[in-house]
Amino acid sequence: MDLKTFFNPASIAIIGVSENPKKVGYLVAENLIRQGYKGEIYFINPKFDKLFDRPVYKDIKDIKKPIDLVVLAVPADAAMHLLDDLKTIDIHNIVLYAAGFKEAGVDGAVKEQNLVMKAKQYDMTILGPNCIGYVSTISNANVTFLKNASPKGNVGFISQSGALGSLMVDYLVGHENFGFSYFMSLGNKATIDECDLLEFLRDDPDTKVIGMYLEDVKRGEDFKRILEETTKIKPVIILKSGSTVEGSKAAGSHTGSMVGDDMVYTTAFDQYGGIRAGQFFEFMSMLKICSFGRAPTSKDILILSNAGGIGVLLTDELIKNKLELVTVPEDVKETIKKNMGGDKVTIHNPIDLLGDASAFQYRQAIAATIQQKHIGGVIVMLTPQANTEVEDTAITLIEAQSAFSKPIFPIFMGEKSVGQSHTHFERAKMASFFTYDFLPSALAKIIHYQDHIQHSVVHTKKEIEPAKRVVIPKKSILNPFETNTVLMSAGINPVSLILAKSEEEVRKLGNEIGYPIVLKIASEKITHKTEVKGVRINIQNEKELVDNYHNMCEATGEPSVFLQKMMRGHEFIIGAKRDNQFGIVILLGLGGIYAELI
Amino acid sequence: MDLKTFFNPASIAIIGVSENPKKVGYLVAENLIRQGYKGEIYFINPKFDKLFDRPVYKDIKDIKKPIDLVVLAVPADAAMHLLDDLKTIDIHNIVLYAAGFKEAGVDGAVKEQNLVMKAKQYDMTILGPNCIGYVSTISNANVTFLKNASPKGNVGFISQSGALGSLMVDYLVGHENFGFSYFMSLGNKATIDECDLLEFLRDDPDTKVIGMYLEDVKRGEDFKRILEETTKIKPVIILKSGSTVEGSKAAGSHTGSMVGDDMVYTTAFDQYGGIRAGQFFEFMSMLKICSFGRAPTSKDILILSNAGGIGVLLTDELIKNKLELVTVPEDVKETIKKNMGGDKVTIHNPIDLLGDASAFQYRQAIAATIQQKHIGGVIVMLTPQANTEVEDTAITLIEAQSAFSKPIFPIFMGEKSVGQSHTHFERAKMASFFTYDFLPSALAKIIHYQDHIQHSVVHTKKEIEPAKRVVIPKKSILNPFETNTVLMSAGINPVSLILAKSEEEVRKLGNEIGYPIVLKIASEKITHKTEVKGVRINIQNEKELVDNYHNMCEATGEPSVFLQKMMRGHEFIIGAKRDNQFGIVILLGLGGIYAELI
Repeated sequence: MDLKTFFNPASIAIIGVSENPKKVGYLVAENLIRQGYKGEIYFINPKFDKLFDRPVYKDIKDIKKPIDLVVLAVPADAAMHLLDDLKTIDIHNIVLYAAGFKEAGVDGAVKEQNLVMKAKQYDMTILGPNCIGYVSTISNANVTFLKNASPKGNVGFISQSGALGSLMVDYLVGHENFGFSYFMSLGNKATIDECDLLEFLRDDPDTKVIGMYLEDVKRGEDFKRILEETTKIKPVIILKSGSTVEGSKAAGSHTGSMVGDDMVYTTAFDQYGGIRAGQFFEFMSMLKICSFGRAPTSKDILILSNAGGIGVLLTDELIKNKLELVTVPEDVKETIKKNMGGDKVTIHNPIDLLGDASAFQYRQAIAATIQQKHIGGVIVMLTPQANTEVEDTAITLIEAQSAFSKPIFPIFMGEKSVGQSHTHFERAKMASFFTYDFLPSALAKIIHYQDHIQHSVVHTKKEIEPAKRVVIPKKSILNPFETNTVLMSAGINPVSLILAKSEEEVRKLGNEIGYPIVLKIASEKITHKTEVKGVRINIQNEKELVDNYHNMCEATGEPSVFLQKMMRGHEFIIGAKRDNQFGIVILLGLGGIYAELI
Repeated sequence: MDLKTFFNPASIAIIGVSENPKKVGYLVAENLIRQGYKGEIYFINPKFDKLFDRPVYKDIKDIKKPIDLVVLAVPADAAMHLLDDLKTIDIHNIVLYAAGFKEAGVDGAVKEQNLVMKAKQYDMTILGPNCIGYVSTISNANVTFLKNASPKGNVGFISQSGALGSLMVDYLVGHENFGFSYFMSLGNKATIDECDLLEFLRDDPDTKVIGMYLEDVKRGEDFKRILEETTKIKPVIILKSGSTVEGSKAAGSHTGSMVGDDMVYTTAFDQYGGIRAGQFFEFMSMLKICSFGRAPTSKDILILSNAGGIGVLLTDELIKNKLELVTVPEDVKETIKKNMGGDKVTIHNPIDLLGDASAFQYRQAIAATIQQKHIGGVIVMLTPQANTEVEDTAITLIEAQSAFSKPIFPIFMGEKSVGQSHTHFERAKMASFFTYDFLPSALAKIIHYQDHIQHSVVHTKKEIEPAKRVVIPKKSILNPFETNTVLMSAGINPVSLILAKSEEEVRKLGNEIGYPIVLKIASEKITHKTEVKGVRINIQNEKELVDNYHNMCEATGEPSVFLQKMMRGHEFIIGAKRDNQFGIVILLGLGGIYAELI
């Protein structure tokens, strides 16, 4: 799906433009003008002649010029009728805000089916319905009804929730250098879905990092492919809701999504390089770090702090997130000690600069340490104490960052004294934080992503020759013999399983196979074999074998048993299921009696 | 230890008062005046006659009036000398800021030992050394060198890190109704430790909730007792660092603490009603909720939201924290639907009021739901969308809170549009939040605390009669027989264990005990019995028994084995160790071959 014209149109028509500042038709028109869109704008509403100092057309057919994008600021039923008109004048790109489709029950679902059919028939690409539109800060096309113009930046954001977009804009307008290349609201995904948008942002040179809020994924196979292609080029950070059953239910009623197994989403995201965010501020932290282009180069972190206790709390969080504290070499320790005035400073990592650390002391500690080859990043903590030089320390860090390539992450905690410093850092494109809470997990996930990309495995798929495939018996539980046959046909060699039906056969086969031997129940009625003592392992000789055979026959009332050569190794469970979104999912874990416990 | 005079003194002398605004001696004097202390203030420094428009004494002995508290703003060695002088004029309460004691290596540790000895000999109570003093907003005694006066409130805060105190003050000065009754910096705990302070705050009527930042606990047994007594009256919220080995090391170099096993701390806190915070903002959130006195009454939560997606994210977090979503009864659903204008609103829980929800609609939804008996609390989410009435919705919620007893927790997300609303909420003593990230875990922990207090168990200790105690053999590993003897002497009845030394004995004992039987290796050299097949279970008859006996003898080269009656049930591991801080700790878990795996 080529969306270049859709998201950077040369002309936009708004049907349903309004004079009421509370109506979507007003807000969209206002946003388009306020954002500074330079293309042709056409307003349509039979009730008005002029709005926003611009002419208003009675009918879109009166315009008689090419229109790249039509925005429908009208209710659902009106929109459905309009599609037929739009077809006649060769309109192909449509933004549809209206709610009342599949998120609103059975009638709505029928309406949405009609919408999808018409779109296909008329060759129309539709964003929505039940969406809030999009912003392109590249062409300054803002066809959302958000409260503010969107700040320009390099974050491409795809959202299955309009509110999350409005929230991010509300947050970003107060910040610097941190903004959108594109913000796209998915809505009900009648024709454009997250795969199309991800593909568009993958190829967009103005987008450095992609953020997604998802409740479900529509085309799992495509999503995996596009995600893999995209994450090779730029990070994709995903906030997905519905990680609990209750949350999934709530998501279902929100956008009418059919949400799948959340564990499968986590696995799919991870396997194809996506970074799954935990909570909102972790999500924002990762976007900011990637947007500013200063990710840590390894998991070896150095901490400088003027607050010992908080250095310790940060250390705990780093370690819990599997990051590592760099060891400071002895000669560097000596240099810092000399510079900092003797024995008071504790030169381990975290380096505790003590409560009265000056900006100059921060500078010296950074200069002495940051060029150590094995440092992946430096976290500099500051709490506002009596003599803390907040402003000067911020400037010192900005200077240091411009001189050194290793990323510096300032955590300036507090509120009153440190607020302004975060503005300085943003101006210098340094990701700074007001608490240590989110940074360790954010860094750990980014580093994991980088490792993944560097060491990504080529996925090969081994097809089984059709001739070698067996037909799997149509029953819910296979017996061990049937299981082995299926495994063998898939190219996996299980331990041979031999059926014996009498003591004589058991004796004979035992000698052929060789001891030690395992004896298994052959009854199809029993799946949990351990509980009925249906597995006898490590049988050492013929006598033990015969004893166990009779004992087992007594329990099952059947003369049939399976014999296998006893193997040593780890017991594991392997399983597979077909997920609605992502196809075949494989389970691999600790097996035996603990499979259901753990 | 009676600390009433210490923390609310009628007179304070500062030795080492200074004219240099960067020196502690200046900052403390300034804070004491700025905080509005009404008692007698005496300044001492031989270099000055007058400072802060007040007379300065050459020597403390010149004052010749009773002094309740002496503040030593002088270096470590000078402080040590001064103690002898102070003894002669009957001074008993001292705040000592100086660093250079046990946190600073061997020489410092010796100095601290001397300090402790002198304090004992002279009957002196010392806060510190290596501390930043304390603030009492009750008597307005502020003898810290923090940057700001401390806001008054009902939070008693005990901190083993001075920086954390300064950080909290920096945060709190911009807020309303949220402040300290007392802030106390522990430092190296030469004489006053966390037990003394907890005991003081337990009995303090102006303290409604206690916050603690701890790196270690000095007197475990006392701490458990005082914590239990305190949490019966008011919540104690603890932020403890050193939850990882690396963090513990860092804590050790920070205040010279001997930190113990972190798991033991978690267990001890929980067992005696303390609430352990995870991260900093969770800690602050819990303090705020408890300080405002509006804790949820049960784990049944109702969510109202104008942002479906974020309602889902919040739902996920609530469920992960084992909170529950209230089911909205059908009649209430109908009422809300009617009020909100039909079918568009999704009335499950979370109740999605849609992006254009007005303040009036929020009001109606609250009115229709909040009186439901089973609701423990209502979380109201708002994101700033096009027509969102942020201010009016805030006022609506404040009015609703004043009319209903169930707590309402507003989460107003965003930055630009919602900042002011948080000020409104604080004025009305409502705990509001700028993101959903911390609230679910904060609420869950508070509810767990309330349950704990309501259902707290009386701890009984059963002493074993000395006559029945056996002497435990002095060896590192006991054999099964010795273990059984020790267990029996402690009043636990294990399965009888019988030693057999020959096939004949084995046969005889087997018949006496009755089948099925377990055979165990009696070798003292082997602890992991499974690996050498040293445990044979479920032996059904004499023949199996004899076979297994010979087989085992072959493996060990010894004729001795243990016999036990085979039992059914769960296998578990039990262990105990003596923790430095908290005494005997008991381990109970899944046993057998998985004990070290899990």
